[in-house]
Amino acid sequence: MTVPPIDPFHALSISKLAHELAAQGRSIIHMEFGQPSTGAPKAALERAQHVLATDPMGYWESQALRDRIARHYHETYDVSVQPAQVILTCGASPALVLALLASFVPGARVAMARPGYVAYRNVVRTLHMEPVEIPCGEKERFQLTASAIRALEPAPDGLILASPANPTGTILSADEMQAIVAVCRERGICIISDEIYHGLSFGERAHSILEYDPHALVVNSFSKYFSMAPWRLGWLVVPPEKAEIAHARMGNLFLPPAALSQHAALVAFDGRDELDGHIETYRRNRDLLLQALPQMGLNHIAPPDGAFYIYADIRHLTDDSMAFCRRLLMDTGVTTAPGIDFDPVDGKFFIRFSFAVNTALIEEAIRRMVPWFQEQAARTHKCNVLQY
Amino acid sequence: MTVPPIDPFHALSISKLAHELAAQGRSIIHMEFGQPSTGAPKAALERAQHVLATDPMGYWESQALRDRIARHYHETYDVSVQPAQVILTCGASPALVLALLASFVPGARVAMARPGYVAYRNVVRTLHMEPVEIPCGEKERFQLTASAIRALEPAPDGLILASPANPTGTILSADEMQAIVAVCRERGICIISDEIYHGLSFGERAHSILEYDPHALVVNSFSKYFSMAPWRLGWLVVPPEKAEIAHARMGNLFLPPAALSQHAALVAFDGRDELDGHIETYRRNRDLLLQALPQMGLNHIAPPDGAFYIYADIRHLTDDSMAFCRRLLMDTGVTTAPGIDFDPVDGKFFIRFSFAVNTALIEEAIRRMVPWFQEQAARTHKCNVLQY
Repeated sequence: MTVPPIDPFHALSISKLAHELAAQGRSIIHMEFGQPSTGAPKAALERAQHVLATDPMGYWESQALRDRIARHYHETYDVSVQPAQVILTCGASPALVLALLASFVPGARVAMARPGYVAYRNVVRTLHMEPVEIPCGEKERFQLTASAIRALEPAPDGLILASPANPTGTILSADEMQAIVAVCRERGICIISDEIYHGLSFGERAHSILEYDPHALVVNSFSKYFSMAPWRLGWLVVPPEKAEIAHARMGNLFLPPAALSQHAALVAFDGRDELDGHIETYRRNRDLLLQALPQMGLNHIAPPDGAFYIYADIRHLTDDSMAFCRRLLMDTGVTTAPGIDFDPVDGKFFIRFSFAVNTALIEEAIRRMVPWFQEQAARTHKCNVLQY
Repeated sequence: MTVPPIDPFHALSISKLAHELAAQGRSIIHMEFGQPSTGAPKAALERAQHVLATDPMGYWESQALRDRIARHYHETYDVSVQPAQVILTCGASPALVLALLASFVPGARVAMARPGYVAYRNVVRTLHMEPVEIPCGEKERFQLTASAIRALEPAPDGLILASPANPTGTILSADEMQAIVAVCRERGICIISDEIYHGLSFGERAHSILEYDPHALVVNSFSKYFSMAPWRLGWLVVPPEKAEIAHARMGNLFLPPAALSQHAALVAFDGRDELDGHIETYRRNRDLLLQALPQMGLNHIAPPDGAFYIYADIRHLTDDSMAFCRRLLMDTGVTTAPGIDFDPVDGKFFIRFSFAVNTALIEEAIRRMVPWFQEQAARTHKCNVLQY
């Protein structure tokens, strides 16, 4: 057995190029990463400033925050979660590591949608487990289905669900989620649900796996809806039967997250007006993009039910999404993520736009992209014609 | 293969009891954890306040901080480290996880001193590697020796070094460290050096493994010398040949640490006067304890060359350090860590005092402990006499 190689995050090198161009004076619009450009809620910032001024702090796990998170499940999903089931982490990333280590052993097979968040397969691989990628195309709204999970032979040990998903923003319906839970129960598959984009939906709200499966693990964080990505604070909900094993791993592998972030996050729970305002911005951005995409010739996209992404099919323009993103950046200053980060097979035909920036930037990005995409289409058409 | 059980951190339950007693109005002195009671350096706090007031921040890896850390190796140890070898993490804990995952696979045998920091064996076990504990007693100054490593059959795949060590504070001499590196090179053993207590020494400074072995990995953090434990910021230095594999793991498993902590830490590097003042406090505390220990009948301790711990042999008083710590707490309000956290075999005979609190508290702790320990000794003596 050797230390397994894992893929780099390609959007990072696009982003690096963007920063180099910006340093040369180019006007750059960042749509490559999934992070709100807004800061933490005002009340959270004020709380942080107060704590900094008055408290030297120490290693700390905020019981009040764990209580508040447990209450959040009751208020939002009408499910019961005890504070002892909540483990605070330095973001959703270590929460996923913890969830996997508390549930599976090396060699375990963990299923996930393809396309999906790049870290799922990479973390599974790093921990010497085996990612089982389930291809999800336009027909399946780029999401997992109960029937796809039923068809897996042999049954995997685990399943990572994501709704709203990254890179697509698609949300699983309550019916499909229930059907998935039923298949997993029947086949003995343990579910880890990544609910990091919860709170960010444009139609029906996303359902928590805990509404249907009390034995599932839930990964979440303050990075997206709460607009606190750089504060690196997330949480894991574990079922009562895994609480002890998961807490012991938390203390040994990670220790508690930054004390200041915990102070601020507790207040953020009550900064909802400001946070809901961000969603209105995302909704405007999404509407503008949905309006512009046909003019850009992009007619095949994942339905962006939630999150702040549009995952678009560009196979009529390229079979090399990385080169395409680089060209788009060089020509227009608009920075995007290549599909190959999310899908090692078909990702070469896709591009992801993140619209978590302000609306003026989205308008400017559209102004630049529409003629550029039209030109690409004309050029490709000409090439295709010439090839005959 | 099953998810391996790991031990809880027993000092946590002692600490919990202490907090309960405090809530009942008891006067408690916290000497159970290894954390400075001082806050971050003043300049770091000011920088954090400024950033909070002016910058919404984002996911971020501070190049300036990586540069500064690389320069620190040149300035402090006269060794060359490139910024690309420095990986920022949410504390030393995930840096150790990263070091292990970048170097070893499940089933690998990783050697370490016993006694040693509880997380070493627990993290190794959680990652399905095998801890190989090397007993280190008073004769070996509770530290690893080249000859002990030479004697291991078969040779382990890896070795975790710690100098200054936790729970003992002992420092490896340059000669011994060189000898250890030579044995490891000869036997193909990869070294991970936990240098988290560097900067905190009371005699000769601790040496970095990088002075002798450019292929070693180094774990460090801003939690101890820099007095920034609750900011959760650490780093890993990897050899150039492992930089790519470790960076890819960092991005997938963890993402970068809190942006605010990175801003503050960069400034902390230049808050040395204040930080060196803390060391003078620790030195005073250490001297007071070393003076008091004989009155407490504690004549067998690890030589506290560095860090802020005293690890004392209490086998003349108990063979149950956990019960002993609980009794000490109940009777005097002084909270300590039981040796069983650090040594599953002989730890029942040891107790760890952390003296990273202010000197007035150490004086008060001594005032309370001296008569209590004398009484314990008298009682134990009487019992022993009665048993004849």
